[in-house]
Amino acid sequence: MCAQNKTSEFSHPVRVYYEDTDSGGIVYYANYLKFMERARTEFLRELGFEQDHLRLHSKRLFVVKSVTINYVSPAVFNALLDVTACVEQCKRASVTFFQQIWSAGSLHCEGTILLACLHSDSLKPAAIPNEIKEALSIEH
Amino acid sequence: MCAQNKTSEFSHPVRVYYEDTDSGGIVYYANYLKFMERARTEFLRELGFEQDHLRLHSKRLFVVKSVTINYVSPAVFNALLDVTACVEQCKRASVTFFQQIWSAGSLHCEGTILLACLHSDSLKPAAIPNEIKEALSIEH
Amino acid sequence: MCAQNKTSEFSHPVRVYYEDTDSGGIVYYANYLKFMERARTEFLRELGFEQDHLRLHSKRLFVVKSVTINYVSPAVFNALLDVTACVEQCKRASVTFFQQIWSAGSLHCEGTILLACLHSDSLKPAAIPNEIKEALSIEH
Amino acid sequence: MCAQNKTSEFSHPVRVYYEDTDSGGIVYYANYLKFMERARTEFLRELGFEQDHLRLHSKRLFVVKSVTINYVSPAVFNALLDVTACVEQCKRASVTFFQQIWSAGSLHCEGTILLACLHSDSLKPAAIPNEIKEALSIEH
Repeated sequence: MCAQNKTSEFSHPVRVYYEDTDSGGIVYYANYLKFMERARTEFLRELGFEQDHLRLHSKRLFVVKSVTINYVSPAVFNALLDVTACVEQCKRASVTFFQQIWSAGSLHCEGTILLACLHSDSLKPAAIPNEIKEALSIEH
Repeated sequence: MCAQNKTSEFSHPVRVYYEDTDSGGIVYYANYLKFMERARTEFLRELGFEQDHLRLHSKRLFVVKSVTINYVSPAVFNALLDVTACVEQCKRASVTFFQQIWSAGSLHCEGTILLACLHSDSLKPAAIPNEIKEALSIEH
Repeated sequence: MCAQNKTSEFSHPVRVYYEDTDSGGIVYYANYLKFMERARTEFLRELGFEQDHLRLHSKRLFVVKSVTINYVSPAVFNALLDVTACVEQCKRASVTFFQQIWSAGSLHCEGTILLACLHSDSLKPAAIPNEIKEALSIEH
Repeated sequence: MCAQNKTSEFSHPVRVYYEDTDSGGIVYYANYLKFMERARTEFLRELGFEQDHLRLHSKRLFVVKSVTINYVSPAVFNALLDVTACVEQCKRASVTFFQQIWSAGSLHCEGTILLACLHSDSLKPAAIPNEIKEALSIEH
Protein backbone atom coordinates (compact mmCIF):
# COMPACT_ATOMS: atom_id res chain seq x y z
CA MET A 1 0.00 0.00 0.00
CA CYS A 2 1.36 3.41 -0.87
CA ALA A 3 -0.52 5.41 1.74
CA GLN A 4 -0.66 4.77 5.45
CA ASN A 5 -2.44 8.05 5.68
CA LYS A 6 -5.75 7.33 3.95
CA THR A 7 -6.65 11.02 3.77
CA SER A 8 -3.86 11.65 1.30
CA GLU A 9 -5.43 9.25 -1.15
CA PHE A 10 -7.43 10.50 -4.06
CA SER A 11 -10.67 8.76 -4.97
CA HIS A 12 -12.84 9.21 -8.05
CA PRO A 13 -16.36 7.77 -8.41
CA VAL A 14 -17.14 5.74 -11.54
CA ARG A 15 -20.54 4.27 -12.34
CA VAL A 16 -20.63 0.93 -14.18
CA TYR A 17 -22.82 1.13 -17.31
CA TYR A 18 -23.74 -1.61 -19.79
CA GLU A 19 -20.86 -0.46 -22.03
CA ASP A 20 -18.40 -1.56 -19.30
CA THR A 21 -19.72 -5.08 -18.79
CA ASP A 22 -19.45 -8.24 -20.86
CA SER A 23 -21.65 -11.27 -21.37
CA GLY A 24 -20.00 -12.92 -18.38
CA GLY A 25 -22.18 -10.48 -16.42
CA ILE A 26 -19.22 -8.54 -15.02
CA VAL A 27 -16.98 -5.59 -15.90
CA TYR A 28 -14.69 -6.53 -18.81
CA TYR A 29 -11.12 -6.87 -17.53
CA ALA A 30 -9.56 -4.24 -19.82
CA ASN A 31 -12.12 -1.63 -18.77
CA TYR A 32 -10.69 -1.32 -15.26
CA LEU A 33 -7.66 0.26 -16.93
CA LYS A 34 -9.98 2.90 -18.39
CA PHE A 35 -11.38 3.60 -14.94
CA MET A 36 -7.88 3.90 -13.50
CA GLU A 37 -6.90 6.39 -16.17
CA ARG A 38 -10.02 8.45 -15.50
CA ALA A 39 -8.98 8.63 -11.84
CA ARG A 40 -5.40 9.63 -12.69
CA THR A 41 -6.74 12.34 -14.99
CA GLU A 42 -9.06 13.67 -12.27
CA PHE A 43 -6.23 13.48 -9.73
CA LEU A 44 -4.04 15.69 -11.94
CA ARG A 45 -6.99 18.01 -12.53
CA GLU A 46 -7.57 18.35 -8.78
CA LEU A 47 -3.91 19.28 -8.41
CA GLY A 48 -4.51 21.99 -11.01
CA PHE A 49 -3.13 20.32 -14.13
CA GLU A 50 -5.13 19.86 -17.32
CA GLN A 51 -3.50 17.44 -19.72
CA ASP A 52 -4.56 19.32 -22.85
CA HIS A 53 -2.94 22.52 -21.53
CA LEU A 54 0.09 20.52 -20.39
CA ARG A 55 0.54 19.19 -23.89
CA LEU A 56 0.00 22.49 -25.62
CA HIS A 57 1.87 24.84 -23.29
CA SER A 58 4.44 22.67 -21.47
CA LYS A 59 4.98 20.27 -24.40
CA ARG A 60 4.60 17.30 -22.10
CA LEU A 61 2.48 14.19 -22.23
CA PHE A 62 2.29 11.10 -20.05
CA VAL A 63 2.24 7.61 -21.53
CA VAL A 64 1.79 4.31 -19.75
CA LYS A 65 4.97 2.19 -19.74
CA SER A 66 3.80 -0.74 -17.66
CA VAL A 67 0.82 -2.07 -15.74
CA THR A 68 0.57 -4.80 -13.15
CA ILE A 69 -3.01 -5.49 -12.14
CA ASN A 70 -4.59 -8.12 -9.91
CA TYR A 71 -8.28 -8.91 -10.24
CA VAL A 72 -9.74 -9.75 -6.85
CA SER A 73 -13.53 -9.82 -7.23
CA PRO A 74 -15.74 -8.82 -10.17
CA ALA A 75 -17.78 -5.62 -10.32
CA VAL A 76 -21.22 -5.71 -11.89
CA PHE A 77 -23.61 -3.49 -13.83
CA ASN A 78 -24.81 -0.40 -11.97
CA ALA A 79 -22.14 -0.58 -9.25
CA LEU A 80 -20.76 2.74 -8.04
CA LEU A 81 -17.01 2.32 -7.88
CA ASP A 82 -14.39 4.22 -5.94
CA VAL A 83 -11.22 4.41 -7.96
CA THR A 84 -8.24 5.48 -5.87
CA ALA A 85 -4.93 6.88 -7.03
CA CYS A 86 -1.82 7.59 -5.07
CA VAL A 87 1.74 8.30 -6.11
CA GLU A 88 4.11 5.54 -5.14
CA GLN A 89 7.22 7.13 -6.61
CA CYS A 90 7.95 10.25 -8.61
CA LYS A 91 11.22 10.40 -10.50
CA ARG A 92 12.72 12.88 -12.99
CA ALA A 93 10.79 11.65 -16.02
CA SER A 94 8.42 9.02 -14.67
CA VAL A 95 5.80 8.52 -12.00
CA THR A 96 4.39 5.34 -10.48
CA PHE A 97 0.80 5.16 -9.27
CA PHE A 98 -0.80 2.59 -7.02
CA GLN A 99 -4.54 2.32 -7.65
CA GLN A 100 -7.43 0.31 -6.27
CA ILE A 101 -11.05 -0.09 -7.33
CA TRP A 102 -13.63 -0.66 -4.62
CA SER A 103 -17.36 -0.74 -4.20
CA ALA A 104 -19.50 -1.43 -1.16
CA GLY A 105 -16.48 -2.47 0.88
CA SER A 106 -15.20 -4.97 -1.69
CA LEU A 107 -11.89 -4.63 -3.49
CA HIS A 108 -12.34 -5.42 -7.18
CA CYS A 109 -8.77 -4.94 -8.37
CA GLU A 110 -5.54 -3.13 -7.67
CA GLY A 111 -2.58 -2.26 -9.76
CA THR A 112 0.67 -0.43 -10.20
CA ILE A 113 0.97 1.82 -13.22
CA LEU A 114 4.24 3.35 -14.41
CA LEU A 115 3.94 6.44 -16.61
CA ALA A 116 6.72 8.11 -18.54
CA CYS A 117 6.76 11.83 -19.22
CA LEU A 118 7.52 12.57 -22.87
CA HIS A 119 8.18 15.70 -24.87
CA SER A 120 5.04 16.05 -26.97
CA ASP A 121 6.93 16.81 -30.20
CA SER A 122 9.96 14.50 -30.01
CA LEU A 123 8.13 11.83 -27.99
CA LYS A 124 11.41 11.35 -26.09
CA PRO A 125 11.57 11.12 -22.29
CA ALA A 126 11.47 14.59 -20.72
CA ALA A 127 11.57 15.90 -17.18
CA ILE A 128 8.25 16.22 -15.41
CA PRO A 129 7.65 19.97 -14.96
CA ASN A 130 8.72 21.04 -11.46
CA GLU A 131 5.33 22.29 -10.34
CA ILE A 132 3.76 18.93 -11.23
CA LYS A 133 6.54 16.98 -9.59
CA GLU A 134 6.15 19.00 -6.40
CA ALA A 135 2.39 18.60 -6.38
CA LEU A 136 2.64 14.85 -6.93
CA SER A 137 5.21 14.53 -4.16
CA ILE A 138 3.25 16.60 -1.66
CA GLU A 139 0.09 14.68 -2.39
CA HIS A 140 1.97 11.47 -1.76
CA MET B 1 -36.81 19.61 -30.27
CA CYS B 2 -38.88 17.70 -27.80
CA ALA B 3 -38.95 20.32 -25.07
CA GLN B 4 -39.99 23.94 -25.37
CA ASN B 5 -39.66 24.05 -21.64
CA LYS B 6 -35.91 23.69 -21.11
CA THR B 7 -36.33 23.05 -17.39
CA SER B 8 -38.03 19.74 -18.08
CA GLU B 9 -34.93 18.46 -19.84
CA PHE B 10 -32.53 16.20 -18.08
CA SER B 11 -28.81 16.78 -18.49
CA HIS B 12 -25.91 14.56 -17.44
CA PRO B 13 -22.26 15.68 -17.45
CA VAL B 14 -19.72 13.46 -19.21
CA ARG B 15 -15.99 14.14 -19.30
CA VAL B 16 -14.10 13.13 -22.46
CA TYR B 17 -11.09 10.93 -21.62
CA TYR B 18 -8.43 9.48 -23.93
CA GLU B 19 -10.44 6.23 -24.12
CA ASP B 20 -13.23 8.15 -25.89
CA THR B 21 -11.13 9.74 -28.61
CA ASP B 22 -9.52 8.36 -31.75
CA SER B 23 -6.42 9.21 -33.74
CA GLY B 24 -8.44 11.74 -35.72
CA GLY B 25 -8.12 13.80 -32.52
CA ILE B 26 -11.85 13.72 -31.78
CA VAL B 27 -14.43 11.61 -29.97
CA TYR B 28 -14.98 8.33 -31.87
CA TYR B 29 -18.44 8.39 -33.47
CA ALA B 30 -19.77 5.24 -31.76
CA ASN B 31 -18.85 6.55 -28.32
CA TYR B 32 -21.52 9.25 -28.39
CA LEU B 33 -24.02 6.40 -28.18
CA LYS B 34 -22.34 5.30 -24.95
CA PHE B 35 -22.68 8.82 -23.56
CA MET B 36 -26.35 8.92 -24.54
CA GLU B 37 -27.01 5.65 -22.78
CA ARG B 38 -25.25 6.91 -19.65
CA ALA B 39 -27.61 9.90 -19.66
CA ARG B 40 -30.71 7.73 -20.17
CA THR B 41 -29.57 5.53 -17.27
CA GLU B 42 -29.06 8.55 -15.02
CA PHE B 43 -32.39 9.99 -16.13
CA LEU B 44 -34.17 6.79 -15.05
CA ARG B 45 -32.17 6.77 -11.81
CA GLU B 46 -33.22 10.35 -11.05
CA LEU B 47 -36.83 9.29 -11.57
CA GLY B 48 -36.22 6.57 -9.00
CA PHE B 49 -35.67 3.55 -11.24
CA GLU B 50 -32.57 1.37 -11.09
CA GLN B 51 -32.25 -0.91 -14.08
CA ASP B 52 -30.77 -3.81 -12.12
CA HIS B 53 -33.74 -3.76 -9.74
CA LEU B 54 -36.11 -3.33 -12.66
CA ARG B 55 -34.71 -6.44 -14.28
CA LEU B 56 -34.71 -8.50 -11.11
CA HIS B 57 -37.99 -7.43 -9.55
CA SER B 58 -40.17 -6.19 -12.41
CA LYS B 59 -38.69 -8.59 -15.00
CA ARG B 60 -38.26 -5.77 -17.47
CA LEU B 61 -35.36 -4.57 -19.52
CA PHE B 62 -35.01 -1.90 -22.17
CA VAL B 63 -33.25 -2.57 -25.46
CA VAL B 64 -32.44 -0.12 -28.23
CA LYS B 65 -34.47 -0.76 -31.39
CA SER B 66 -33.28 2.12 -33.54
CA VAL B 67 -31.01 5.14 -33.51
CA THR B 68 -30.88 8.15 -35.78
CA ILE B 69 -27.95 10.41 -34.99
CA ASN B 70 -26.55 13.50 -36.67
CA TYR B 71 -22.99 14.58 -36.01
CA VAL B 72 -22.73 18.36 -36.05
CA SER B 73 -19.29 19.27 -34.69
CA PRO B 74 -16.59 17.11 -33.09
CA ALA B 75 -15.85 17.02 -29.36
CA VAL B 76 -12.25 16.73 -28.24
CA PHE B 77 -10.20 15.30 -25.38
CA ASN B 78 -10.90 16.82 -21.97
CA ALA B 79 -14.17 18.48 -22.99
CA LEU B 80 -16.92 18.48 -20.38
CA LEU B 81 -20.09 17.46 -22.20
CA ASP B 82 -23.72 18.00 -21.34
CA VAL B 83 -25.75 15.04 -22.48
CA THR B 84 -29.46 15.78 -22.50
CA ALA B 85 -32.33 13.33 -22.54
CA CYS B 86 -36.02 13.96 -22.97
CA VAL B 87 -38.92 11.69 -23.73
CA GLU B 88 -40.44 12.34 -27.13
CA GLN B 89 -43.06 9.64 -26.94
CA CYS B 90 -43.98 6.94 -24.46
CA LYS B 91 -46.12 4.07 -25.67
CA ARG B 92 -47.28 0.79 -24.11
CA ALA B 93 -44.06 -1.12 -24.67
CA SER B 94 -41.66 1.44 -26.11
CA VAL B 95 -40.26 4.87 -25.43
CA THR B 96 -38.57 7.36 -27.73
CA PHE B 97 -35.87 9.70 -26.44
CA PHE B 98 -34.49 12.81 -28.08
CA GLN B 99 -30.94 13.53 -26.95
CA GLN B 100 -28.30 16.15 -27.61
CA ILE B 101 -24.64 16.46 -26.66
CA TRP B 102 -23.26 19.92 -26.04
CA SER B 103 -20.16 21.56 -24.67
CA ALA B 104 -19.25 25.21 -24.31
CA GLY B 105 -22.29 26.29 -26.31
CA SER B 106 -21.59 23.99 -29.25
CA LEU B 107 -23.87 21.17 -30.31
CA HIS B 108 -21.80 18.06 -31.07
CA CYS B 109 -24.58 15.69 -32.06
CA GLU B 110 -28.24 14.92 -31.59
CA GLY B 111 -30.29 11.84 -32.03
CA THR B 112 -33.54 9.99 -31.62
CA ILE B 113 -33.40 6.66 -29.82
CA LEU B 114 -36.26 4.17 -29.74
CA LEU B 115 -36.19 1.65 -26.91
CA ALA B 116 -38.41 -1.40 -26.53
CA CYS B 117 -39.42 -2.77 -23.17
CA LEU B 118 -38.93 -6.54 -22.98
CA HIS B 119 -39.77 -9.22 -20.46
CA SER B 120 -36.37 -10.16 -19.07
CA ASP B 121 -37.02 -13.92 -19.29
CA SER B 122 -38.91 -14.31 -22.56
CA LEU B 123 -37.23 -11.30 -24.21
CA LYS B 124 -40.63 -10.54 -25.78
CA PRO B 125 -42.17 -7.06 -25.84
CA ALA B 126 -43.82 -6.26 -22.51
CA ALA B 127 -45.71 -3.28 -21.12
CA ILE B 128 -43.63 -0.60 -19.46
CA PRO B 129 -44.53 -0.72 -15.73
CA ASN B 130 -47.14 1.93 -14.95
CA GLU B 131 -45.05 3.86 -12.45
CA ILE B 132 -42.24 4.21 -15.00
CA LYS B 133 -44.63 5.19 -17.76
CA GLU B 134 -46.17 7.86 -15.57
CA ALA B 135 -42.80 9.21 -14.49
CA LEU B 136 -41.57 9.36 -18.07
CA SER B 137 -44.72 11.11 -19.20
CA ILE B 138 -44.65 13.69 -16.39
CA GLU B 139 -41.01 14.44 -16.98
CA HIS B 140 -41.80 15.03 -20.64
CA MET C 1 -31.64 -2.35 -50.35
CA CYS C 2 -28.88 -0.77 -52.34
CA ALA C 3 -27.83 -3.81 -54.35
CA GLN C 4 -30.05 -5.99 -56.49
CA ASN C 5 -26.90 -7.67 -57.64
CA LYS C 6 -25.70 -9.39 -54.47
CA THR C 7 -22.29 -10.13 -56.00
CA SER C 8 -21.41 -6.46 -56.00
CA GLU C 9 -21.80 -6.29 -52.25
CA PHE C 10 -18.75 -6.32 -50.05
CA SER C 11 -18.76 -8.45 -46.93
CA HIS C 12 -16.26 -8.50 -44.07
CA PRO C 13 -16.17 -11.20 -41.35
CA VAL C 14 -16.14 -10.04 -37.72
CA ARG C 15 -15.90 -12.39 -34.75
CA VAL C 16 -17.77 -11.39 -31.58
CA TYR C 17 -15.44 -11.43 -28.53
CA TYR C 18 -16.24 -10.76 -24.88
CA GLU C 19 -15.15 -7.13 -25.35
CA ASP C 20 -18.09 -6.63 -27.74
CA THR C 21 -20.84 -7.97 -25.50
CA ASP C 22 -22.55 -6.56 -22.43
CA SER C 23 -24.12 -8.05 -19.33
CA GLY C 24 -27.42 -8.35 -21.21
CA GLY C 25 -25.63 -11.29 -22.88
CA ILE C 26 -25.63 -9.64 -26.33
CA VAL C 27 -23.49 -7.34 -28.45
CA TYR C 28 -23.61 -3.79 -27.02
CA TYR C 29 -25.58 -1.55 -29.38
CA ALA C 30 -22.82 0.98 -30.05
CA ASN C 31 -20.36 -1.75 -31.02
CA TYR C 32 -22.22 -2.56 -34.24
CA LEU C 33 -21.07 0.89 -35.44
CA LYS C 34 -17.47 -0.25 -34.85
CA PHE C 35 -18.08 -3.37 -36.92
CA MET C 36 -19.61 -1.28 -39.72
CA GLU C 37 -16.60 1.01 -39.77
CA ARG C 38 -14.25 -1.97 -39.92
CA ALA C 39 -16.15 -3.19 -43.00
CA ARG C 40 -16.04 0.24 -44.67
CA THR C 41 -12.29 0.40 -44.03
CA GLU C 42 -11.76 -3.07 -45.53
CA PHE C 43 -14.00 -2.16 -48.46
CA LEU C 44 -11.82 0.86 -49.24
CA ARG C 45 -8.71 -1.26 -48.77
CA GLU C 46 -10.01 -3.85 -51.23
CA LEU C 47 -10.55 -1.06 -53.74
CA GLY C 48 -6.92 -0.11 -53.21
CA PHE C 49 -7.25 2.81 -50.81
CA GLU C 50 -5.50 2.95 -47.45
CA GLN C 51 -6.88 5.68 -45.22
CA ASP C 52 -3.53 6.55 -43.66
CA HIS C 53 -2.01 7.12 -47.13
CA LEU C 54 -5.14 8.99 -48.20
CA ARG C 55 -4.73 11.34 -45.28
CA LEU C 56 -1.01 11.86 -45.75
CA HIS C 57 -0.77 12.05 -49.53
CA SER C 58 -4.21 13.18 -50.74
CA LYS C 59 -4.98 15.28 -47.64
CA ARG C 60 -8.40 13.73 -47.34
CA LEU C 61 -10.25 12.07 -44.50
CA PHE C 62 -13.76 10.73 -44.14
CA VAL C 63 -15.94 11.56 -41.14
CA VAL C 64 -19.36 10.22 -40.26
CA LYS C 65 -22.09 12.86 -40.57
CA SER C 66 -25.15 10.75 -39.77
CA VAL C 67 -26.21 7.22 -38.92
CA THR C 68 -29.61 5.58 -39.01
CA ILE C 69 -29.53 2.08 -37.62
CA ASN C 70 -32.25 -0.47 -36.90
CA TYR C 71 -31.60 -3.31 -34.51
CA VAL C 72 -33.46 -6.43 -35.62
CA SER C 73 -32.13 -9.33 -33.54
CA PRO C 74 -29.23 -9.52 -31.09
CA ALA C 75 -25.88 -11.15 -31.84
CA VAL C 76 -24.14 -13.09 -29.09
CA PHE C 77 -20.64 -14.00 -27.91
CA ASN C 78 -18.60 -16.08 -30.35
CA ALA C 79 -20.86 -15.41 -33.35
CA LEU C 80 -19.11 -14.98 -36.68
CA LEU C 81 -20.72 -11.98 -38.32
CA ASP C 82 -20.89 -10.93 -41.94
CA VAL C 83 -20.78 -7.16 -42.18
CA THR C 84 -21.80 -5.91 -45.60
CA ALA C 85 -21.13 -2.54 -47.16
CA CYS C 86 -22.44 -1.08 -50.36
CA VAL C 87 -22.48 2.44 -51.73
CA GLU C 88 -25.96 3.88 -51.97
CA GLN C 89 -24.93 7.25 -53.31
CA CYS C 90 -21.63 8.95 -54.06
CA LYS C 91 -21.63 12.73 -54.41
CA ARG C 92 -18.89 15.31 -54.83
CA ALA C 93 -17.86 15.45 -51.17
CA SER C 94 -19.92 12.75 -49.49
CA VAL C 95 -20.79 9.12 -49.77
CA THR C 96 -23.68 7.13 -48.35
CA PHE C 97 -23.28 3.48 -47.38
CA PHE C 98 -25.97 0.92 -46.69
CA GLN C 99 -24.74 -1.81 -44.35
CA GLN C 100 -26.14 -4.96 -42.80
CA ILE C 101 -24.83 -7.34 -40.15
CA TRP C 102 -25.77 -10.99 -40.45
CA SER C 103 -24.86 -14.32 -38.91
CA ALA C 104 -26.20 -17.79 -39.58
CA GLY C 105 -28.97 -16.44 -41.79
CA SER C 106 -30.22 -13.89 -39.24
CA LEU C 107 -30.13 -10.16 -39.78
CA HIS C 108 -28.89 -8.43 -36.63
CA CYS C 109 -29.05 -4.83 -37.76
CA GLU C 110 -28.91 -2.58 -40.79
CA GLY C 111 -28.11 1.04 -41.25
CA THR C 112 -27.43 3.96 -43.52
CA ILE C 113 -24.23 5.89 -42.89
CA LEU C 114 -23.42 9.23 -44.48
CA LEU C 115 -19.75 10.20 -44.60
CA ALA C 116 -18.32 13.56 -45.55
CA CYS C 117 -14.96 13.93 -47.21
CA LEU C 118 -12.85 16.62 -45.51
CA HIS C 119 -9.53 18.26 -46.25
CA SER C 120 -7.28 16.84 -43.54
CA ASP C 121 -5.73 20.23 -42.67
CA SER C 122 -8.67 22.64 -42.91
CA LEU C 123 -11.26 20.01 -41.91
CA LYS C 124 -13.57 21.65 -44.48
CA PRO C 125 -15.60 19.65 -47.01
CA ALA C 126 -13.44 18.65 -49.97
CA ALA C 127 -14.05 16.72 -53.17
CA ILE C 128 -13.58 12.98 -52.99
CA PRO C 129 -10.52 12.19 -55.14
CA ASN C 130 -11.62 11.07 -58.63
CA GLU C 131 -10.07 7.62 -58.47
CA ILE C 132 -11.92 6.88 -55.24
CA LYS C 133 -15.18 8.26 -56.57
CA GLU C 134 -14.90 6.11 -59.66
CA ALA C 135 -14.05 3.01 -57.68
CA LEU C 136 -16.98 3.57 -55.31
CA SER C 137 -19.37 4.13 -58.22
CA ILE C 138 -18.24 1.06 -60.14
CA GLU C 139 -18.51 -1.09 -57.05
CA HIS C 140 -22.04 0.15 -56.62
CA MET D 1 10.24 -15.92 -23.46
CA CYS D 2 8.11 -19.02 -23.14
CA ALA D 3 9.01 -20.62 -26.45
CA GLN D 4 12.46 -21.40 -27.75
CA ASN D 5 10.73 -23.18 -30.55
CA LYS D 6 9.06 -20.33 -32.44
CA THR D 7 6.91 -22.74 -34.49
CA SER D 8 4.98 -23.75 -31.39
CA GLU D 9 3.84 -20.20 -30.88
CA PHE D 10 0.38 -19.18 -31.95
CA SER D 11 -0.11 -15.86 -33.73
CA HIS D 12 -3.33 -14.05 -34.57
CA PRO D 13 -3.54 -11.05 -36.93
CA VAL D 14 -5.35 -7.94 -35.67
CA ARG D 15 -5.91 -4.82 -37.75
CA VAL D 16 -5.84 -1.47 -35.93
CA TYR D 17 -8.99 0.57 -36.68
CA TYR D 18 -9.93 4.08 -35.54
CA GLU D 19 -11.90 2.57 -32.63
CA ASP D 20 -8.61 1.25 -31.19
CA THR D 21 -6.65 4.50 -31.25
CA ASP D 22 -6.80 7.61 -29.11
CA SER D 23 -6.14 11.29 -29.71
CA GLY D 24 -2.47 10.70 -28.84
CA GLY D 25 -2.42 9.14 -32.32
CA ILE D 26 -1.64 5.65 -31.01
CA VAL D 27 -3.45 2.53 -29.82
CA TYR D 28 -5.07 3.19 -26.43
CA TYR D 29 -3.21 1.24 -23.75
CA ALA D 30 -6.17 -0.79 -22.50
CA ASN D 31 -7.02 -1.97 -26.01
CA TYR D 32 -3.92 -4.17 -26.24
CA LEU D 33 -5.60 -6.33 -23.58
CA LYS D 34 -8.54 -6.76 -25.95
CA PHE D 35 -6.19 -7.86 -28.72
CA MET D 36 -4.50 -10.34 -26.38
CA GLU D 37 -7.84 -11.83 -25.42
CA ARG D 38 -8.82 -12.17 -29.07
CA ALA D 39 -5.60 -14.13 -29.64
CA ARG D 40 -6.19 -16.38 -26.62
CA THR D 41 -9.71 -17.07 -27.87
CA GLU D 42 -8.46 -17.95 -31.35
CA PHE D 43 -5.70 -20.09 -29.83
CA LEU D 44 -8.29 -22.13 -27.92
CA ARG D 45 -10.46 -22.31 -31.04
CA GLU D 46 -7.53 -23.65 -33.08
CA LEU D 47 -7.04 -26.32 -30.43
CA GLY D 48 -10.68 -27.24 -30.92
CA PHE D 49 -12.29 -25.47 -27.96
CA GLU D 50 -15.13 -22.99 -28.29
CA GLN D 51 -15.70 -21.01 -25.13
CA ASP D 52 -19.47 -20.86 -25.52
CA HIS D 53 -19.64 -24.67 -25.76
CA LEU D 54 -17.17 -24.99 -22.91
CA ARG D 55 -19.41 -22.90 -20.72
CA LEU D 56 -22.62 -24.67 -21.71
CA HIS D 57 -21.44 -28.27 -21.83
CA SER D 58 -18.39 -28.45 -19.54
CA LYS D 59 -19.59 -25.75 -17.13
CA ARG D 60 -16.24 -24.02 -17.25
CA LEU D 61 -15.20 -20.47 -17.90
CA PHE D 62 -11.86 -18.71 -17.78
CA VAL D 63 -11.40 -15.39 -16.00
CA VAL D 64 -8.33 -13.17 -15.89
CA LYS D 65 -6.74 -13.06 -12.43
CA SER D 66 -3.70 -10.89 -13.16
CA VAL D 67 -1.95 -9.06 -15.96
CA THR D 68 1.57 -7.70 -16.19
CA ILE D 69 2.14 -5.76 -19.38
CA ASN D 70 5.05 -3.69 -20.64
CA TYR D 71 4.52 -1.14 -23.37
CA VAL D 72 7.58 -0.94 -25.60
CA SER D 73 6.61 1.10 -28.67
CA PRO D 74 3.25 2.44 -29.80
CA ALA D 75 1.17 0.95 -32.63
CA VAL D 76 -0.73 3.29 -34.92
CA PHE D 77 -3.90 3.39 -37.02
CA ASN D 78 -4.03 0.86 -39.86
CA ALA D 79 -1.15 -1.28 -38.56
CA LEU D 80 -1.54 -5.02 -39.02
CA LEU D 81 -0.52 -6.59 -35.74
CA ASP D 82 0.67 -10.08 -34.92
CA VAL D 83 -0.60 -11.07 -31.51
CA THR D 84 1.17 -14.13 -30.15
CA ALA D 85 0.07 -16.45 -27.38
CA CYS D 86 1.93 -19.26 -25.73
CA VAL D 87 1.33 -21.19 -22.54
CA GLU D 88 3.93 -20.53 -19.91
CA GLN D 89 2.42 -22.77 -17.27
CA CYS D 90 -0.69 -24.89 -16.99
CA LYS D 91 -1.80 -25.94 -13.52
CA ARG D 92 -4.87 -27.76 -12.20
CA ALA D 93 -7.21 -24.75 -12.25
CA SER D 94 -5.18 -21.99 -13.86
CA VAL D 95 -3.11 -21.26 -16.92
CA THR D 96 -0.49 -18.59 -17.57
CA PHE D 97 0.00 -17.11 -21.03
CA PHE D 98 2.91 -15.08 -22.32
CA GLN D 99 1.85 -12.81 -25.17
CA GLN D 100 3.52 -10.29 -27.45
CA ILE D 101 2.18 -7.81 -30.00
CA TRP D 102 4.32 -7.06 -33.03
CA SER D 103 4.05 -5.29 -36.35
CA ALA D 104 6.62 -4.80 -39.08
CA GLY D 105 9.41 -6.17 -36.91
CA SER D 106 8.65 -3.90 -33.94
CA LEU D 107 7.54 -5.16 -30.56
CA HIS D 108 4.69 -3.00 -29.26
CA CYS D 109 4.06 -4.70 -25.93
CA GLU D 110 4.35 -7.98 -24.09
CA GLY D 111 2.65 -9.38 -21.08
CA THR D 112 1.95 -12.28 -18.79
CA ILE D 113 -1.69 -13.13 -18.19
CA LEU D 114 -2.88 -15.53 -15.50
CA LEU D 115 -6.33 -17.04 -16.01
CA ALA D 116 -8.33 -19.04 -13.52
CA CYS D 117 -10.73 -21.77 -14.55
CA LEU D 118 -14.07 -21.44 -12.76
CA HIS D 119 -17.20 -23.54 -12.57
CA SER D 120 -19.70 -21.51 -14.56
CA ASP D 121 -22.50 -21.88 -11.98
CA SER D 122 -20.68 -21.60 -8.66
CA LEU D 123 -17.94 -19.32 -10.03
CA LYS D 124 -15.53 -21.22 -7.79
CA PRO D 125 -12.14 -22.49 -9.01
CA ALA D 126 -12.53 -25.74 -10.93
CA ALA D 127 -10.14 -28.11 -12.67
CA ILE D 128 -9.38 -27.37 -16.29
CA PRO D 129 -10.93 -30.23 -18.31
CA ASN D 130 -8.28 -32.84 -19.13
CA GLU D 131 -8.52 -32.55 -22.88
CA ILE D 132 -7.93 -28.80 -22.69
CA LYS D 133 -5.07 -29.22 -20.24
CA GLU D 134 -3.41 -31.75 -22.50
CA ALA D 135 -3.87 -29.59 -25.57
CA LEU D 136 -2.44 -26.55 -23.81
CA SER D 137 0.54 -28.54 -22.55
CA ILE D 138 1.31 -30.09 -25.93
CA GLU D 139 1.08 -26.75 -27.63
CA HIS D 140 3.52 -25.39 -25.11
